[in-house]
Amino acid sequence: MPCGALRHCATRWPTPPADSATPSDTVTPMDTLHIYNKLLQFALFQGLSKADLGALVTHTRLGFHKYAEGDTIARAQTTCDRLFFLIDGRVEVVTSADNGSYALAETAAAPLLFEPEALFGVSPHYASLYRALTPCSVIGIGKDEIYKLIDRFPIFRINYFNLLSALIQKRHARCWRSHGESIDSRVVDFVHSHSRYPVGAKRVVVKMVRLAQELGCSRLEVSRALHRLQNQGRLQLFRGGFVADLAAPAHQQSTPDTFRQ
Amino acid sequence: MPCGALRHCATRWPTPPADSATPSDTVTPMDTLHIYNKLLQFALFQGLSKADLGALVTHTRLGFHKYAEGDTIARAQTTCDRLFFLIDGRVEVVTSADNGSYALAETAAAPLLFEPEALFGVSPHYASLYRALTPCSVIGIGKDEIYKLIDRFPIFRINYFNLLSALIQKRHARCWRSHGESIDSRVVDFVHSHSRYPVGAKRVVVKMVRLAQELGCSRLEVSRALHRLQNQGRLQLFRGGFVADLAAPAHQQSTPDTFRQ
Repeated sequence: MPCGALRHCATRWPTPPADSATPSDTVTPMDTLHIYNKLLQFALFQGLSKADLGALVTHTRLGFHKYAEGDTIARAQTTCDRLFFLIDGRVEVVTSADNGSYALAETAAAPLLFEPEALFGVSPHYASLYRALTPCSVIGIGKDEIYKLIDRFPIFRINYFNLLSALIQKRHARCWRSHGESIDSRVVDFVHSHSRYPVGAKRVVVKMVRLAQELGCSRLEVSRALHRLQNQGRLQLFRGGFVADLAAPAHQQSTPDTFRQ
Repeated sequence: MPCGALRHCATRWPTPPADSATPSDTVTPMDTLHIYNKLLQFALFQGLSKADLGALVTHTRLGFHKYAEGDTIARAQTTCDRLFFLIDGRVEVVTSADNGSYALAETAAAPLLFEPEALFGVSPHYASLYRALTPCSVIGIGKDEIYKLIDRFPIFRINYFNLLSALIQKRHARCWRSHGESIDSRVVDFVHSHSRYPVGAKRVVVKMVRLAQELGCSRLEVSRALHRLQNQGRLQLFRGGFVADLAAPAHQQSTPDTFRQ
């Protein structure tokens, strides 16, 4: 995975992941309005009063980062010491199997919060890699600052509880939904169950023999299913995997999964 | 599902789910010590100082409920308006597929917190049914009181964030773990992936043809796998399902799943 260097940071938090961030006490009224509008796109900040948001923007150490195409914003398995809010641009989100035998890359666009659960829990690490597909603007808020926001703003913390709980509920619901019976449906289910985001192109890097093991069928059956789906225009095979741009499987279409904001 | 009546409640919160609970201002020092010890068994309260716990027990409306064997404590799909802490006894936890085509019943013992995520999120409902297998003692804390604890005790709220985040991380990790290839392994994986708790007997009510659909194989293959597992003493078939008391699948044994406290 290429790891591009950080190309530019605003002066208020010059070199993430440095811990020497200084409060954003030089924010102008115009900046403040712009940051307001950007933050209000995220569920975590919704419902905060204008006064609270003003206090938040003025007194919270916000890191403003810009990344060029190809730069790595956060790396899988590294410690999550801040929340990243993608406010402009598109990223590729790559998740790999524990044993490295397959991986799935998704594209997602701003506004996007990276793994809100990664800041807490038994394993405070990013599970996926986040790489800029276009020039990206990101607001980073360190763990200490998030703790302060949780302490200070009841709406923020309830939003956070709601966000985490919704993720658990949606994962649970997905497990108990009916699965398709054909191999074609199982391929589509596999892609959906390994995706963070319900829509968009998913690039799956997997050998047919490995996918067959995951689906509990033969390599030949998987090969036929993938070619059928390709003939239907639902995916595009390449050497070592496929790109799928799948709608929800037919048996799930009544309950579209908006797994992540 | 039988729904036993509530047999006895202590006077401090006589008739759940009534909302007329009164503060537990009659708690004696002996009661307080007992409740301390019971609450400290739960991750949510760990790390609270003795003074904080004392204040919590004195000022929080705690509902003390007793249930007889067979009583339903919480019903699936009903609104979750309080957290239930099972402090004594054993319960059966029943979860059903969306379309009702199969169900899994697990047993779990105190200390047990029922679905901490059910209080928040887009769907604040219990996903499972909880029924007393033995006489059970439960402390119920209403949503308003939980909000006050979250507001008042930073350690409590961080514990709650950690608990929810750990649930997401463990669900995610389970999805990306390698799956067994044989039908036998897939049966075991199916039971694990639908279980809330990593250990204990699981009663799976499912027709073989339905299980075959879930596993992507034929009814005959499932039947053979179930009989092989029965011959190994790993499960017991009954008409319409099986009871499994399974250790973690071999390929998962290095990472025991302590999915819930």
